[in-house]
Amino acid sequence: MLDEYVSRTYRTEVRPSVEANLVKDKAAIVGIGQTKFMRNSERDELDMACEAIKAAVEDAGLSMEDIDGLVAFTLERLAMPVLISCLGIPNLRFTNEISFGGGASCATVLHAAAAVVTGVANYVVCYRSLNEASGHRYGRGDGYARQLTAAPSPHYGYHWPFGFLTPLAWAGMYGKRWMHEYGVTAEQIGWYAVVLREYAQKNPNAIFYGKPMTHQDYMEARMIVEPLRLFDCCVDTDGAVAIIVTSSERAKALKQRPAYILAAAQSVVTEAEIQTSYNRPIISGLPDHWYMGQELFRIAGVTPKDIDVAQIYDPFSIGALMQLEELGFCGRGEAAAFCEGGDRIRVDGELPINTSGGLLSEAYIHGFNLIAEGVRQIRGTSTSQVKDAELVLVTGGPGVPTSGLILRR
Amino acid sequence: MLDEYVSRTYRTEVRPSVEANLVKDKAAIVGIGQTKFMRNSERDELDMACEAIKAAVEDAGLSMEDIDGLVAFTLERLAMPVLISCLGIPNLRFTNEISFGGGASCATVLHAAAAVVTGVANYVVCYRSLNEASGHRYGRGDGYARQLTAAPSPHYGYHWPFGFLTPLAWAGMYGKRWMHEYGVTAEQIGWYAVVLREYAQKNPNAIFYGKPMTHQDYMEARMIVEPLRLFDCCVDTDGAVAIIVTSSERAKALKQRPAYILAAAQSVVTEAEIQTSYNRPIISGLPDHWYMGQELFRIAGVTPKDIDVAQIYDPFSIGALMQLEELGFCGRGEAAAFCEGGDRIRVDGELPINTSGGLLSEAYIHGFNLIAEGVRQIRGTSTSQVKDAELVLVTGGPGVPTSGLILRR
Repeated sequence: MLDEYVSRTYRTEVRPSVEANLVKDKAAIVGIGQTKFMRNSERDELDMACEAIKAAVEDAGLSMEDIDGLVAFTLERLAMPVLISCLGIPNLRFTNEISFGGGASCATVLHAAAAVVTGVANYVVCYRSLNEASGHRYGRGDGYARQLTAAPSPHYGYHWPFGFLTPLAWAGMYGKRWMHEYGVTAEQIGWYAVVLREYAQKNPNAIFYGKPMTHQDYMEARMIVEPLRLFDCCVDTDGAVAIIVTSSERAKALKQRPAYILAAAQSVVTEAEIQTSYNRPIISGLPDHWYMGQELFRIAGVTPKDIDVAQIYDPFSIGALMQLEELGFCGRGEAAAFCEGGDRIRVDGELPINTSGGLLSEAYIHGFNLIAEGVRQIRGTSTSQVKDAELVLVTGGPGVPTSGLILRR
Repeated sequence: MLDEYVSRTYRTEVRPSVEANLVKDKAAIVGIGQTKFMRNSERDELDMACEAIKAAVEDAGLSMEDIDGLVAFTLERLAMPVLISCLGIPNLRFTNEISFGGGASCATVLHAAAAVVTGVANYVVCYRSLNEASGHRYGRGDGYARQLTAAPSPHYGYHWPFGFLTPLAWAGMYGKRWMHEYGVTAEQIGWYAVVLREYAQKNPNAIFYGKPMTHQDYMEARMIVEPLRLFDCCVDTDGAVAIIVTSSERAKALKQRPAYILAAAQSVVTEAEIQTSYNRPIISGLPDHWYMGQELFRIAGVTPKDIDVAQIYDPFSIGALMQLEELGFCGRGEAAAFCEGGDRIRVDGELPINTSGGLLSEAYIHGFNLIAEGVRQIRGTSTSQVKDAELVLVTGGPGVPTSGLILRR
């Protein structure tokens, strides 16, 4: 079974490596900024984006005049000329958008890094701003369908007419198969959600700060889409997060300890459909993450064992657990057992995960809050600081073209 | 007047240069491919994209398995996972989208070049596929408005309610002011359109091949939006064009003479609105092109006098003429006189322009056909070949964030 899995869905041979990766260690994240994370911002996304970007620029010790690059998501609703005029950025010489939602998060950093390393730009802002709680909610099938029909994605035609409309439903299909195939139990999965809620209790910026949750609370919460219960799901959030990328050379002169980008990678594997790649021979894995991990560790020259703390994109608990397997932190089917009892993923465990509370318990800013937390771990300023964290892994969303980072102190 | 223009709309001081531009001369366009250009393709855009990309891969002497990067426009309607599955590309490690329409054309090459130079990817496809004649037409206000409201671009709220709905109307506002300010006549502008139609008579792939046009035809054609007549407008086209970018090192081993990317630049200047930047103190110029040109010539280390042939993005005749002034080929207000009689822009003139017929007379593939023609000039295979062309300039669309290239033999 596993053999078929690897040889058919995955490619056993990754194609010839590029000779040298110039992004490696040559760029750094030097500023982070964010708004409050809210359930109802009562603000415009433009306004929140400006606040987060200004905070990031100030955090880096730069001025707005220094910024000459901007990278966002294609899902970002703001027109870039409006944004730069509001911010007072004189002009840009590098700007692009990364396809789709959460899978794009770390890819923004990859593209920004390529720009600063090649001297195309000096200081690139990457950001995400969304009213995902009070505004358009991806979890509502109607709005999601309307948005996605803008692009001809023929596969949705097989799903929507039958009411199979939401990311949760699509993810549940993978989750159910994964649990069946490896004998995973809800009790095991629950520990992942419980530990993240514990982290949120230490983080005053987390949506679920001051709202602890026991394993019993998790188990008793209502089922949303089998096998995903309420607290398996990320928390819809209003807010914005921004980061600043520059060259490692320039980074040294700035205000904060740089989070060096040891490796950055982006990946989409053939036979992908956005969130519904059920035509692949096996659906209990995430080939895009597998390939991204192969690239990431190859470029970085380190192994999963070297990672001190991980920020794993968790739109749903199971999506994060499957990534642990694809990235080589666990064997196939072993991630749920790895999290059982929670100790291994707590702050003094083998692999502390999502130390700010993650998308489940801190905020859902499409993965950008995970990048910010990764930087805080490198700086030593997390509310759940991993002692002497040297290497931090950050990933983008599963089920879509994805991306990842390894940050180095 | 000019002083105020330069000091307020433009910035007299371009901000400190980046140290060294690693993209310069380190990447090349090694493959070009295109479909037939049509008024009614009766085909899907996915189908046309696949044909153009396959042709480009074959032209380069590569196989689809070699491709590991893909860059498109945000306006591109195809979902990238669908495209790579149809093409048989195993996976991608670099992909992004460039904002907006024609301004993005040369920026795709910049971003692809940054990827191959840093070793993030080996062979990057850039492409554009659209049924702009038989499908959604940008020139129809209704569809354009619907599409653009997807992004909050508050400035349109000042225009749409009054029926000011189309790119042609928006461009007319700049054109009228420019003609007034510099005493430009329709007779002068007409020569630009006439010469491009001449080029199309030599190019069997041009929409207007076999349909010559005299200066009198130009003058007698109906007014669309003052001061723009019918033949000032680009020709709505169905079709697709694709190119392949790789490192200069790899380029040497491939099938075609490489078109080395001597410089590539992207630009958006503050106070921009998409196509309606009327709040700038002066509207008879294109500051985004001015800034892009400053960057382009600075990086390349050449001057406008060194350019052998130019491919200027011409959605409308006046938009191309204003670029000649911004890029330093003419003084301000002198571009129309420069084109008068047509000799200076014909194939043996001072500056041959749009030798395949341009967007006015070859095809409107959002500027991608201009990049392909630029490459043909470098290869020596244009239907209106400029003798010993060494340096070719290509530009992206005016009135939006823009971009440009200088290709070298």
